[in-house]
Amino acid sequence: MKVRVVIFGQGLVATHFVVGLERLKNGEVEPYGVPLAGYKLVYPIESIDVVGSYDVDESKIGLSLYDIAVKYLGDLISIPNTLKEVEVRRGIHINSLKGLPIKAKGIEEVTGNLLDAINMLVDDFSTLRPDVFINVISTEHAESFNNWDVFISALRSHDISKLSASQVYAYAVFEYARIYGRSVVLINAIPTPLANDDAFVEMFRRVRSLILGDDGATGATPLTADILEHLKERGRRVKSIAQFNIGGNTDFLTLTIPERNIMKEKTKSSIVEDVLGYDVPHYIKPTGYLEPLGDKKFVSMHIAWKTFNEFEDELIINLRINDSPALAGLLIDLARVGKALVERGVYGTCYRVNSFFMKAPGPRGSRSISRIIAYYNMIKYLRDLRIINQEISIPGE
Amino acid sequence: MKVRVVIFGQGLVATHFVVGLERLKNGEVEPYGVPLAGYKLVYPIESIDVVGSYDVDESKIGLSLYDIAVKYLGDLISIPNTLKEVEVRRGIHINSLKGLPIKAKGIEEVTGNLLDAINMLVDDFSTLRPDVFINVISTEHAESFNNWDVFISALRSHDISKLSASQVYAYAVFEYARIYGRSVVLINAIPTPLANDDAFVEMFRRVRSLILGDDGATGATPLTADILEHLKERGRRVKSIAQFNIGGNTDFLTLTIPERNIMKEKTKSSIVEDVLGYDVPHYIKPTGYLEPLGDKKFVSMHIAWKTFNEFEDELIINLRINDSPALAGLLIDLARVGKALVERGVYGTCYRVNSFFMKAPGPRGSRSISRIIAYYNMIKYLRDLRIINQEISIPGE
Amino acid sequence: MKVRVVIFGQGLVATHFVVGLERLKNGEVEPYGVPLAGYKLVYPIESIDVVGSYDVDESKIGLSLYDIAVKYLGDLISIPNTLKEVEVRRGIHINSLKGLPIKAKGIEEVTGNLLDAINMLVDDFSTLRPDVFINVISTEHAESFNNWDVFISALRSHDISKLSASQVYAYAVFEYARIYGRSVVLINAIPTPLANDDAFVEMFRRVRSLILGDDGATGATPLTADILEHLKERGRRVKSIAQFNIGGNTDFLTLTIPERNIMKEKTKSSIVEDVLGYDVPHYIKPTGYLEPLGDKKFVSMHIAWKTFNEFEDELIINLRINDSPALAGLLIDLARVGKALVERGVYGTCYRVNSFFMKAPGPRGSRSISRIIAYYNMIKYLRDLRIINQEISIPGE
Amino acid sequence: MKVRVVIFGQGLVATHFVVGLERLKNGEVEPYGVPLAGYKLVYPIESIDVVGSYDVDESKIGLSLYDIAVKYLGDLISIPNTLKEVEVRRGIHINSLKGLPIKAKGIEEVTGNLLDAINMLVDDFSTLRPDVFINVISTEHAESFNNWDVFISALRSHDISKLSASQVYAYAVFEYARIYGRSVVLINAIPTPLANDDAFVEMFRRVRSLILGDDGATGATPLTADILEHLKERGRRVKSIAQFNIGGNTDFLTLTIPERNIMKEKTKSSIVEDVLGYDVPHYIKPTGYLEPLGDKKFVSMHIAWKTFNEFEDELIINLRINDSPALAGLLIDLARVGKALVERGVYGTCYRVNSFFMKAPGPRGSRSISRIIAYYNMIKYLRDLRIINQEISIPGE
Repeated sequence: MKVRVVIFGQGLVATHFVVGLERLKNGEVEPYGVPLAGYKLVYPIESIDVVGSYDVDESKIGLSLYDIAVKYLGDLISIPNTLKEVEVRRGIHINSLKGLPIKAKGIEEVTGNLLDAINMLVDDFSTLRPDVFINVISTEHAESFNNWDVFISALRSHDISKLSASQVYAYAVFEYARIYGRSVVLINAIPTPLANDDAFVEMFRRVRSLILGDDGATGATPLTADILEHLKERGRRVKSIAQFNIGGNTDFLTLTIPERNIMKEKTKSSIVEDVLGYDVPHYIKPTGYLEPLGDKKFVSMHIAWKTFNEFEDELIINLRINDSPALAGLLIDLARVGKALVERGVYGTCYRVNSFFMKAPGPRGSRSISRIIAYYNMIKYLRDLRIINQEISIPGE
Repeated sequence: MKVRVVIFGQGLVATHFVVGLERLKNGEVEPYGVPLAGYKLVYPIESIDVVGSYDVDESKIGLSLYDIAVKYLGDLISIPNTLKEVEVRRGIHINSLKGLPIKAKGIEEVTGNLLDAINMLVDDFSTLRPDVFINVISTEHAESFNNWDVFISALRSHDISKLSASQVYAYAVFEYARIYGRSVVLINAIPTPLANDDAFVEMFRRVRSLILGDDGATGATPLTADILEHLKERGRRVKSIAQFNIGGNTDFLTLTIPERNIMKEKTKSSIVEDVLGYDVPHYIKPTGYLEPLGDKKFVSMHIAWKTFNEFEDELIINLRINDSPALAGLLIDLARVGKALVERGVYGTCYRVNSFFMKAPGPRGSRSISRIIAYYNMIKYLRDLRIINQEISIPGE
Repeated sequence: MKVRVVIFGQGLVATHFVVGLERLKNGEVEPYGVPLAGYKLVYPIESIDVVGSYDVDESKIGLSLYDIAVKYLGDLISIPNTLKEVEVRRGIHINSLKGLPIKAKGIEEVTGNLLDAINMLVDDFSTLRPDVFINVISTEHAESFNNWDVFISALRSHDISKLSASQVYAYAVFEYARIYGRSVVLINAIPTPLANDDAFVEMFRRVRSLILGDDGATGATPLTADILEHLKERGRRVKSIAQFNIGGNTDFLTLTIPERNIMKEKTKSSIVEDVLGYDVPHYIKPTGYLEPLGDKKFVSMHIAWKTFNEFEDELIINLRINDSPALAGLLIDLARVGKALVERGVYGTCYRVNSFFMKAPGPRGSRSISRIIAYYNMIKYLRDLRIINQEISIPGE
Repeated sequence: MKVRVVIFGQGLVATHFVVGLERLKNGEVEPYGVPLAGYKLVYPIESIDVVGSYDVDESKIGLSLYDIAVKYLGDLISIPNTLKEVEVRRGIHINSLKGLPIKAKGIEEVTGNLLDAINMLVDDFSTLRPDVFINVISTEHAESFNNWDVFISALRSHDISKLSASQVYAYAVFEYARIYGRSVVLINAIPTPLANDDAFVEMFRRVRSLILGDDGATGATPLTADILEHLKERGRRVKSIAQFNIGGNTDFLTLTIPERNIMKEKTKSSIVEDVLGYDVPHYIKPTGYLEPLGDKKFVSMHIAWKTFNEFEDELIINLRINDSPALAGLLIDLARVGKALVERGVYGTCYRVNSFFMKAPGPRGSRSISRIIAYYNMIKYLRDLRIINQEISIPGE
């Protein structure tokens, strides 16, 4: 049994995903950075096949995943030849790359009509027959609809100011599920609210499909969640939190545009009150773009708190993290868990899984919790659903 | 109902404990650094009364807790007058301060006989009628016995080379429980193996008493446990761990003596394999003494790991932590939870509680686990025992 | 002989300056943070007298320096009574506090006429008879004129959009020097270009007066200069520089306003190419406001470079620095050195002194150099001018 | 004109030196990490030829520099074929590798006689005709003699307990200079006191030769010197200094042996009082060995000080530094400057050069000063001697 995957946005994350996946299949690397690699899942890593990929960057469309991987990673690792088989297709744009130094054009800009563009995508999907769609386009500005009629109306009136590429992709996935009667999974690894949008979650549920999202939890945010949980449990009263992030990949470049930065700030900051149970003055956001850092971002964090007898302690964390591989590793699990979930009738969205993997776990209004807690909750849930097919040991149980 | 407490070792931790406790009773400070302060426990903080204290430092014996607190903390905080009521008594030495620039003499050095000294202590206890004993003497070198006969034989032959002050104090507590038929709690907040010594645990069980220990988990070690758990859950393969600790309090001075340092290194290092499930080259130990740092130690930690596609990430943590208040805050909970446990028939030792509060949780052979996991395990356990007397919410449940 | 000082902007820096000065006179503290305290200067610290202070914050005008000091620092240190003698007067506003949550009104807003306001100031000065003026108002947006006629024309036409409070203050100081024939010193410790404005420097020269500036070099910038010099000397090729600054004082609040932030970014970034001799991608700027940090800012810096054989090294610096005392300590020296300079005929501006004390050392076009170099250059210069009155030893000479 | 170089100790530093040198000659890399690369020296980098190398590790003797470079660095960089021409010869041991997991045997252990061994070396040198000898053997325990007779007596009586390999190598170099009437340079890049030993300096002077040393200043120590200078100049009163170093190369392994560690601690700690002018409690030493860190050591530093008004600031530095290339880059300059110095009649030792390049600059009793000061002092000195053959600009002059 295979997990057939289609990618939206063939950037660095997607490239790490496809390259790492092939290297894992070839036994060239260990499955580091794949959270569930140590468990026996119903879908092993090898069952994942990438069958399609979409982008709007003119310099990528028509190239094979191999060509793109050579460009991005060729001087760091050897690129598997098997990646030559999949070619990048033109996707939806809706200005998702506007303001960036990239020449981009979407199908809707070619056809001149958004609904035609969507139909073309759905046709495509019917040939590719994907089980799972992974959304890793650049961070874009978007507002949630929470109302299907309003969304459909914006779509029909071609009102690009209200729409985002991710929402249009999600609609195409929905249409594909509806028309062809297939239960599919949409993994939304960027901040656009989809698993947090009541309307999308409900409509996916109706077509027996699933959205996992939003915004993959890598890097500093989940670590901060666990550190705040750690401090809370010891009764330490947090006084202030500063967290700086700087990097040199396209995502950081994107985030120099203020309205995109605000998307990330929202998903990053939600953890503070959710985990601590009280709000604290904080500065948590992507801070800047520094090209030579490349994909290995620098994070600096300062947390001060009051301890017993009201003395003050402080903690400083500095990280050097490869941004894209971190997310790519999570996608390996999300793809295979996602397919197993819909097969077991889990539709709409799934908090148990989102709360570990996502910065802003859907459904809307859900609490961001310590990842360590979320992890074991998820493990037990996957075991109970027999997605993890083995006896497992939970520490202290 | 009161929790009557006797202290062994009136150093900076004990002083923070008694001062903070009185300030909490007076409403002068918030209960920061007290893990369970947010829960309704059967014994509120106000129920704790310190009724006795022992030390072997000649400059402390005979002084009131107030006098000592003024000396240690007088220029930082105001010292409650209520501390004038308890006077420091001469305790057991067994060379526990040997090698330090402190003039010390124990009862056994006054009487010339260890068993006499113990009898005097037990008599004392019978007057003070403590429920809980807290051991916070300086870190000493000690080996576990795991065999009561061997211990008793060392005691009878006055073989100081095999004994440590903590073990002799533990014996006095045991004798007090046995002779007077009282269920008591010994909280061992230093590395000497007591909750990890089969013999002591078994003998305490027989007299319906409890040892909680060993080595209170403050500072860098529990944080490291949670960070390693965090990394493990994300499938990150840890490659190396360096952790330096330096401070200027007596405990750091003590640890410049190699055989004492080794005690700390043991309890600190156990977390690596216990949490990760595999061993990793590591350097984790108290590193040095630097007087001007005082009680606010500096910790520096470096952890490197392999992520997806075998790229390498790294994390650096720097901490400034007030060492003694951190432990004092834990003791507030250990004292009242301890009493509630023995009243509910929990004897010997108690892993559920130790695994959160202790660096080397007893009984012997127990695994050191992520504190975040241990915390919720403990909370549920205390709720089930009705020591926490309220509905509680566990994240994600 | 006295050094009579007038202050513009009675904020936290000025308050630390006046409080620290009095405490030094009273022998309550050591002269830490005063660079030249170890040398015998013609004007000892005790010779400095603060004779006047101006501000536009309605809540300060009319209060004594003592009242303000109690408000800012009263819970941290004891405030000398001698500060009761000087009262804060209404100064020039020109919107220098616009956008901040402070109720402010300048003399020009009372009189309705800028030239009248200036005349009132000059009259004031003629009574106070200051030798030295210190400008420490909040960072404001300002452009240099470099042309006196253009400035005078803006002043006459009351064109507030082109003027800044610092420039108007500087003009008042100039008028005072011109009309009363006094040689005075203006110390500009904020980014507004004055020592870097050709017109102001030339006009001050004509009235035998001196501007020292611009933007006092405290905290991360001079440290970065020395670290970059250190790296350059070892042939290390710097690849990227990230420097984050966050704090909770009014200056950081001010800098959340983008056009003010840009002022600071300019003076901070100039060091990179000046010191290294080549430009490097860098992100160096005040990053955010976090109220609980107060005046003790948090700085995080990351520098990566290529070493021999083109291997890559990296350095991370984290600082906790009391922002205002650092600048106040420099002002102690600038005031007394400034007066000694004009007495020796140094007019216009003085690069030898600026290059050590200032982020953007005037005159315009001057290079920002390593502070360690600048220091010894300055020491020799002050010795040759007999401002330092002793034999001095220069390392390695 | 060539600079003919012989190496003592073909470890990682020497390997980086020979590999980097060849790559520089081939134009494969930029001369990063070579302090004087930007100046026109009388001897360009290309003039350096490595003509011989000695070691006592049985697994290296007989191998070419190429073979060794492939072993150490082959998976990181491409190794130039020209390194095949030089073969590692057996050197002096004197237990310099004792206690390490390396099978070692010196000439003196083969011949059974130290003086014979030295004669063999001198014969060797007469064939190789080196101008410069570089000592980069593992850190060893050694005491200075300061008295030639005592040294000669220890040598004649074959008293290995008093001798170190470096001292014996130095004697062989001296004998070579004396017998063959050649002016040579010995660069001592390890802590053994040679440039700090009055007797060796004087005897080298007599044979018109030069010792540069001791202990090449790379990594944290020179950076600390410059940071302390920076703090001193601002009048900041340093309260404590902690500096931890951990790495995974042979040098760190060596330093786990306490008597070797003490050698390093001495040269590292001397900067504190020398630079600040007063002593401060400090902990500065190589702290541990952690194999996975390899040659890229981790350094953590904490410095606290009092600023104006006696507020307290602190600074934390974390470094990841490639240890061996850093030293190798310095050797490139030391070799060619060394030869130019003896040609200009500089004999014995040379503080002007040592004070920049060395942790413990000779001659004995010399002050360790800020490197930034030392650098410009040296530059001017080399220009005056016409070793630097160009106009140079000194900042601020």
